[in-house]
Amino acid sequence: MAEGLKRRETPLVDRLVVIGPGLIGSSILRAARATGLAHTLVTTDAHSGVRERARELSLADEVPDTSAEAVAGADIVILCVPVGAIASVVAEIADHLKPGAIVSDVGSVKGCVVEKAGPLLPKSVHLVPAHPVAGTEYSGPDSGFATLFVNRWSIITPPEGADAEAIAKIAALWETIGANVEFMSAHHHDRVLAITSHVPHLIAYNIVGTAADLEEITQSEVIKFSAGGFRDFTRIASSDPTMWRDVFLNNKDAVLEMLGRFNEDIAALARAIRWSDGDALFELFTRTRAIRRNIIELGQETAEPDFGRKKG
Amino acid sequence: MAEGLKRRETPLVDRLVVIGPGLIGSSILRAARATGLAHTLVTTDAHSGVRERARELSLADEVPDTSAEAVAGADIVILCVPVGAIASVVAEIADHLKPGAIVSDVGSVKGCVVEKAGPLLPKSVHLVPAHPVAGTEYSGPDSGFATLFVNRWSIITPPEGADAEAIAKIAALWETIGANVEFMSAHHHDRVLAITSHVPHLIAYNIVGTAADLEEITQSEVIKFSAGGFRDFTRIASSDPTMWRDVFLNNKDAVLEMLGRFNEDIAALARAIRWSDGDALFELFTRTRAIRRNIIELGQETAEPDFGRKKG
Repeated sequence: MAEGLKRRETPLVDRLVVIGPGLIGSSILRAARATGLAHTLVTTDAHSGVRERARELSLADEVPDTSAEAVAGADIVILCVPVGAIASVVAEIADHLKPGAIVSDVGSVKGCVVEKAGPLLPKSVHLVPAHPVAGTEYSGPDSGFATLFVNRWSIITPPEGADAEAIAKIAALWETIGANVEFMSAHHHDRVLAITSHVPHLIAYNIVGTAADLEEITQSEVIKFSAGGFRDFTRIASSDPTMWRDVFLNNKDAVLEMLGRFNEDIAALARAIRWSDGDALFELFTRTRAIRRNIIELGQETAEPDFGRKKG
Repeated sequence: MAEGLKRRETPLVDRLVVIGPGLIGSSILRAARATGLAHTLVTTDAHSGVRERARELSLADEVPDTSAEAVAGADIVILCVPVGAIASVVAEIADHLKPGAIVSDVGSVKGCVVEKAGPLLPKSVHLVPAHPVAGTEYSGPDSGFATLFVNRWSIITPPEGADAEAIAKIAALWETIGANVEFMSAHHHDRVLAITSHVPHLIAYNIVGTAADLEEITQSEVIKFSAGGFRDFTRIASSDPTMWRDVFLNNKDAVLEMLGRFNEDIAALARAIRWSDGDALFELFTRTRAIRRNIIELGQETAEPDFGRKKG
């Protein structure tokens, strides 16, 4: 058993269904298999090529062609699709869920899930949205791995009045596959993630675009001298375009507000540079150093120089 | 011999002096030792603690207390101090250099080196500024290693009329310790590095500061959920504060201009988000993905997911 995964003596549920076995979905399936999380694992995808690959990789016991078939008799259904696709998948499965089934997801935005998916589900079904804060820059069924969630945080955002037992089951699912669990409102989640994930992605995508568009500096120069800092940003800026388009379209208010704060701060920094205020720069650069130390101490980052990166 | 370092049959020079054996300086010394670059290695530092550590680590054959002593009889002197300290070190050593000595540096800004240091040197001494685009987020004599420059680029920016033999010697020095060499004007260097290194550092420092200052989101939340993207930025934002303060103060014009372009682009992105222009977002996010692929293909980055990072 890989470190951090918790092997179960008895399965948490009989049938666990993952819709969308990409990076996150296939990692859940691999971890579920390794821990004995469910008696039967089921997965499906809108794309036949992904279903085919899921079968080749034996990611699940059953890989039916449609989500309607997949969710029949399911105890837990986890939607691992881009946030913009959640409502339409929920519409497809709503009539095929058994009473008492739990529907969850892994989307990076949570308010819109409750708003859009909630009203489409029958009263007899429990909606318990979640968001595991974990991933890599790669996508698809081949990119997942069983330990992706170990020592990462999964945030559960139960809607008001959600069933306590259903919430506990989703928490147990994440803990079994190695994650720490935190509860918060969807609204607070969307603001926290706007600053710790969405705006960082936005500025990474943006700086890579700005560099590519300069006419006096060649693409080859940008690439050659990327080890000066730029290349770090390209990792985040190579994340899945569909997923990230949907994140920004569905967390508009929080992203624009946090970006506004980022812009205020960068304007102040630009002013400090223009007026040679070295002390202001030094003060900020010292403060930010301490924050990384905390992240390393709390086990969310490696202390190895340069991320422990090997030469390319 | 570690891969990429080129063992010399005969030393390139008799006496090589590194002033400031920090991350970069101590890496040069280690690589010089490993390749037989010079007959005698000399280092010194303004801080007695650093000199002491250099002696304990046997980074050089001689560790005199002052730069004036250190440069006596030197063939090549490399200044590995923050850009803001270069002029005062040059003033200290100018009268102690032998005719024909070559003075170089490793500063991240090049225009200011020529402007400030050039006039202080005797005519008989050659100034050949250089900038190895390599490093980690750590500083000090203990953080260096011999292969730091392997497969990285070192940019040489010879002033007009610089001695061809002196330029060739500095190029040979970098090639011996594994770097690729590129020549350009100091002016062009400062603009290329503004976009591939200086502005990326500025926005990394800035986003870490913005996140730390939010009142509604706790430091603990920022740390816990940093794996969503934020933690990548903290690596760069933990780089040496003195070095980076000096970079911004000495490359003001190029940094402010490139930052202006970054700001224009981010304003356009914010507008695309506000008006739900998903196609514009998708187009950028697809384009940026291709740039990372190029950086990986050209050996400037690892293809391993998440930089090959181990769990913290």
